[in-house]
Amino acid sequence: IESFDLIAKKSGEDIKEEIYAFKDKGGRMICLIPEFTPSVSRMIANRQKELGKPLKWYSIPRHWRYERPQSGRLREFYQLNVDIFGSESPKADTEVLSVGICIMLNLGLKDFLFHISNRKFLQGLLQEYNVSNIQEAFRIIDKRDKIPEEEFVDGLLKCGIKDYDEILDILDSVTIENIGDFRGRNELMDKAIDNLIDIFRYLEYYGVREHCVLDLSIVRGLAYYTDMVFEVYDKKKEMRSLFGGGRYDDLVESFGGEHTPAVGFGMGDVVLELMMKKEGVWPEEKTDMDYYIANIGDVDRYVFSIAKKLRNKGYRVTFDLMERNLSNQLKYADKINAKKVIIVGEKEIKEGKILIRDMETGKQEKIDVNKI
Amino acid sequence: IESFDLIAKKSGEDIKEEIYAFKDKGGRMICLIPEFTPSVSRMIANRQKELGKPLKWYSIPRHWRYERPQSGRLREFYQLNVDIFGSESPKADTEVLSVGICIMLNLGLKDFLFHISNRKFLQGLLQEYNVSNIQEAFRIIDKRDKIPEEEFVDGLLKCGIKDYDEILDILDSVTIENIGDFRGRNELMDKAIDNLIDIFRYLEYYGVREHCVLDLSIVRGLAYYTDMVFEVYDKKKEMRSLFGGGRYDDLVESFGGEHTPAVGFGMGDVVLELMMKKEGVWPEEKTDMDYYIANIGDVDRYVFSIAKKLRNKGYRVTFDLMERNLSNQLKYADKINAKKVIIVGEKEIKEGKILIRDMETGKQEKIDVNKI
Repeated sequence: IESFDLIAKKSGEDIKEEIYAFKDKGGRMICLIPEFTPSVSRMIANRQKELGKPLKWYSIPRHWRYERPQSGRLREFYQLNVDIFGSESPKADTEVLSVGICIMLNLGLKDFLFHISNRKFLQGLLQEYNVSNIQEAFRIIDKRDKIPEEEFVDGLLKCGIKDYDEILDILDSVTIENIGDFRGRNELMDKAIDNLIDIFRYLEYYGVREHCVLDLSIVRGLAYYTDMVFEVYDKKKEMRSLFGGGRYDDLVESFGGEHTPAVGFGMGDVVLELMMKKEGVWPEEKTDMDYYIANIGDVDRYVFSIAKKLRNKGYRVTFDLMERNLSNQLKYADKINAKKVIIVGEKEIKEGKILIRDMETGKQEKIDVNKI
Repeated sequence: IESFDLIAKKSGEDIKEEIYAFKDKGGRMICLIPEFTPSVSRMIANRQKELGKPLKWYSIPRHWRYERPQSGRLREFYQLNVDIFGSESPKADTEVLSVGICIMLNLGLKDFLFHISNRKFLQGLLQEYNVSNIQEAFRIIDKRDKIPEEEFVDGLLKCGIKDYDEILDILDSVTIENIGDFRGRNELMDKAIDNLIDIFRYLEYYGVREHCVLDLSIVRGLAYYTDMVFEVYDKKKEMRSLFGGGRYDDLVESFGGEHTPAVGFGMGDVVLELMMKKEGVWPEEKTDMDYYIANIGDVDRYVFSIAKKLRNKGYRVTFDLMERNLSNQLKYADKINAKKVIIVGEKEIKEGKILIRDMETGKQEKIDVNKI
């Protein structure tokens, strides 16, 4: 749980509407955390003196947002948060991006593309066109694919954007190869151009450039982003955004900390599961057991002590808790995919022996009980 | 989050008072989960048909209870939940107890004792004394160490327990060695006696008997326990209960599932941390890094590609994100406990070479850049 004000102020309008907020018994307005970045940033601001730079942190908290449950969206979900605090270098942006890319690849996914932009480019461009309410313009442009065209155009006009065709054309057509042509128009755009060219060069060095594309129309819904922003889509953009992130250089300072550049992302589990199922790489859920210890008769003493020995060696071990006969114990061992079955029989135990059966090969051997 | 009614009904009065409850935007009364057992049991009831028996499950959710924050108690905490569903055997009780004991031992703790009882013993005993409101009597006896003696005696009298001295004397004096003397008084007590003797025999077989003691005064605050219950204390009982659990054979059925015996525990992180600090086994927080790649001059291409190669091999690798000079990079590498430092210099790279320095031995060697 978190202070409602903290999230409402820092995350922006769209998230604010989705917050689970309520008064606790002490009369404080609190909420279930909808996203982690403000809380982590406040923590960094409070503990800055003890912490070195740069700081690389990750966490996998559970979050809640009150929105209509639908494909790819649940009200309760997990989110991996990956952030680097303290570095303003585009190398930090690249590190964060490549963590995201490598996770996708390691999950077995192929059909994805990182759409990368820098808010300062759009900010500079909007200033050229004398747009005053930049934050509201960001909000509208971010919603472009989600709202009807009429509402979109209406929103742009309300922000004072008349030449929206020109602006949208630039956002849609510029590539990393020709973005250099826009140099010299204003300082914000120049900064964004240098930053994006650096990032794409480093992505190339890291060998993950092929999974990335420049897409200046990317803005992101959260209010605190300052520079690089990105969203991940399937290649044909058939699904909603898989996840996204960006640079938020002012957030720690806004909590009373020193100026602390920061960049990171939040990766939710719900759309990712859909994507993995779509690509056929969602792992089969399957129990995995090293040893099942079957018993015949009153040999409890040996079953418990063998289980203890094997577990101490790091093996996963289980045995009968259901008073099953041998045949049903073996069926159960098969069902839970036990690699080996140890059979402890009254008769064998008298000679100090037990049987070990390899469930894959079917091979069986009698060994001394003390050899386990 | 969870339905308020679910928790309020199943967990009992004491937990109910501590629930963070509120209405969501759809007008439903929901709450932050104070403990996991009712939710897991409901899940088992709903999915019983697909699941085999026995089921061994664990999870580490975050929980919330609105109580006074104090030493060992926070309003927000993590809790490890370990449960076995489907087995009524005292072997299942023993498995659950031994997981708890082995976790404590593996954390490096020594000064703890598992106080084990069976509610049916106390239930049978109270019936002998014609006590009618057994649930209320359980509640009062559970609070014995937490409330003033006057309040305690008053509570007992209200439940119709006049001969409380006799009862308390039995609870305090009976050991696992002489509990057999109470056989034959009534069926409930006999069942509890058999169960406890079995459990202690299995604990002996498993080699963890020395960490356990019979303590018939243990009742546990949660309403749903039916048979074996336990609480863990430091040996001198100086601290509050570290954690506890027990058997709850009727809970799954109460959610409309089949009769499903169940036993488990919830282990919170807060008191455990105190205990570990007290015993001096709380681990030092320390970064651990396999490689730090230091750069001299414009060698970014090589730094990124070497980092990628080593990370693909499973090593933890980092490099400069702060534009530090070599000396400060090496200081940083030392600070984060890097085992090895790779130095990529402009001059060496021209010959296709890099330097690797072992930070423990101080040994340094020049190798071919392609050999990484």
